[in-house]
Amino acid sequence: MSLQPGQSIKHLAIIGVGLIGGSFARAMRSADMVQHISGYGRNESNLKTAVQLDVIDDYSLDIKDVVKDADLIFIATPVGSIQKILSEIKDHIKADAIITDAGSTKVNVIQAAEIVFDKAPENFVAGHPIAGTENSGVEASFATLYQNHRVILTPSNYTNPEAVKWVSDLWKAVGADVLIMEAKHHDQVLAATSHLPHLLAFSLVNTLTTLDEKQEIFENAAGGFRDFTRIASSDPSMWQDICLANKDALLEHLEHFMGDLKQVKSALEKGDGEFLKQVFQRAKQSRDDFVDKSGSENLPPPNLRPN
Amino acid sequence: MSLQPGQSIKHLAIIGVGLIGGSFARAMRSADMVQHISGYGRNESNLKTAVQLDVIDDYSLDIKDVVKDADLIFIATPVGSIQKILSEIKDHIKADAIITDAGSTKVNVIQAAEIVFDKAPENFVAGHPIAGTENSGVEASFATLYQNHRVILTPSNYTNPEAVKWVSDLWKAVGADVLIMEAKHHDQVLAATSHLPHLLAFSLVNTLTTLDEKQEIFENAAGGFRDFTRIASSDPSMWQDICLANKDALLEHLEHFMGDLKQVKSALEKGDGEFLKQVFQRAKQSRDDFVDKSGSENLPPPNLRPN
Repeated sequence: MSLQPGQSIKHLAIIGVGLIGGSFARAMRSADMVQHISGYGRNESNLKTAVQLDVIDDYSLDIKDVVKDADLIFIATPVGSIQKILSEIKDHIKADAIITDAGSTKVNVIQAAEIVFDKAPENFVAGHPIAGTENSGVEASFATLYQNHRVILTPSNYTNPEAVKWVSDLWKAVGADVLIMEAKHHDQVLAATSHLPHLLAFSLVNTLTTLDEKQEIFENAAGGFRDFTRIASSDPSMWQDICLANKDALLEHLEHFMGDLKQVKSALEKGDGEFLKQVFQRAKQSRDDFVDKSGSENLPPPNLRPN
Repeated sequence: MSLQPGQSIKHLAIIGVGLIGGSFARAMRSADMVQHISGYGRNESNLKTAVQLDVIDDYSLDIKDVVKDADLIFIATPVGSIQKILSEIKDHIKADAIITDAGSTKVNVIQAAEIVFDKAPENFVAGHPIAGTENSGVEASFATLYQNHRVILTPSNYTNPEAVKWVSDLWKAVGADVLIMEAKHHDQVLAATSHLPHLLAFSLVNTLTTLDEKQEIFENAAGGFRDFTRIASSDPSMWQDICLANKDALLEHLEHFMGDLKQVKSALEKGDGEFLKQVFQRAKQSRDDFVDKSGSENLPPPNLRPN
């Protein structure tokens, strides 16, 4: 089963051919890692576009047709739908097919797999590529999305280590850095770096939307506001799913943040500039360190990336 | 006094030769609008760099020398220092010199001018270019910073309309869109679009900095986090000043936001996905509309802008 260097996958099934699934397909093709790609989705016109863009070779609206011959099944649908997908494919996949996913939360995906397969199937490798833009749909997909981005794999106790190695090698072949982590730990970390920021960005823009001066506020916004709120242009249904799926970890970080924000508010009320400055300095220092280390400030922004 | 088309300023004084002051000097030079530029600042090595980069022609650490022959005095120091600057230059400027500033808050700047000059001097035109990056210092300045950006002027009742027209024409000559607004209204609007987002970005990064998994959290951050927190790399002292200077308007918006965030938290606790989705949808809709209208998503990010 394990992938040999240079050996391509005969048949790849992409479940959900959007930004994430489409970019994975494109990346696999670019790396010459795949012979045939079939796509499944609920929106036929999107699938037709995917064929036209040569992201997939063919598609079906019947998921069984798409997975039955697949060696690798890549599930890139919103996390809330993964259990349903697994139930639908369970009885139709090849015995040695590898399944992986790109869900933004991992505890619930592994639980879903345990429910559907009684225990997590040994060939199911839960994963999460830490990459994306605020755009969605196959038109927004591009082959280099995962290059120099991190992919976290969260195998369970049941997972076949060879399957993990196989999926890991695939991601590395398309330029990603792979990290293995426990699912629960993944959800904690991502609640902080991704889910909480999204919740705050959505909330802030929503609050501003309710102000009388709404129109004027948006008209007088500068680049900082544009960057800060970029993630508020993300897909609402997907983020509803993620927030609910990672509710506990997200609530924990949210409470922590709200407590800290209360202190900031109180310092502001008292005119305690020293306190504010310390908060701002700590934040700037951390962020500057992070940007220096990751070098990620040099990545092109979403709008300058090739489609 | 009023600027004739094509007529250049004989002597421009830049008080504070950093990103904002330096970019104004560069822009004025690029537009061939100025004959001589003198700079004042507290950091001599920064001023030397500014001369080397041809941003200014000469400098002095004595502010009197810099302003005494100036036709236009551009104050680009943190808002908390503007009153002191005005006191220092008051008795040394030419009678018909025009003074303008780039402070991020306007009520307190006008109050400062009223205190220093008894009433606001008729040639003082309070202003705020809505432009900037998270970088600071003259090395970060560039001539096109203000192109297609908005500049808000907030003249007081005392301000000579000709002086307003003169400053407005200058900004237009370097490609900015000029808007006239009451100072109090400016501060309300900017509290929402700029000051609150900065406070939240600083606060969030500060909160994450205090977590045990700090290192890991930053390592696993994706592009969305980078964009969301970009403004947390802004200058802490400057933002301390701004927050205190615009305390009332900022607190009002902060309270409103915290109230809304509580509702979001409560929906999350109850697993009320419908509520969350509505918040996310409203936010996405507003931001997408704003980006479509402003077209500003197509601007290059700070790191790709020329220095």
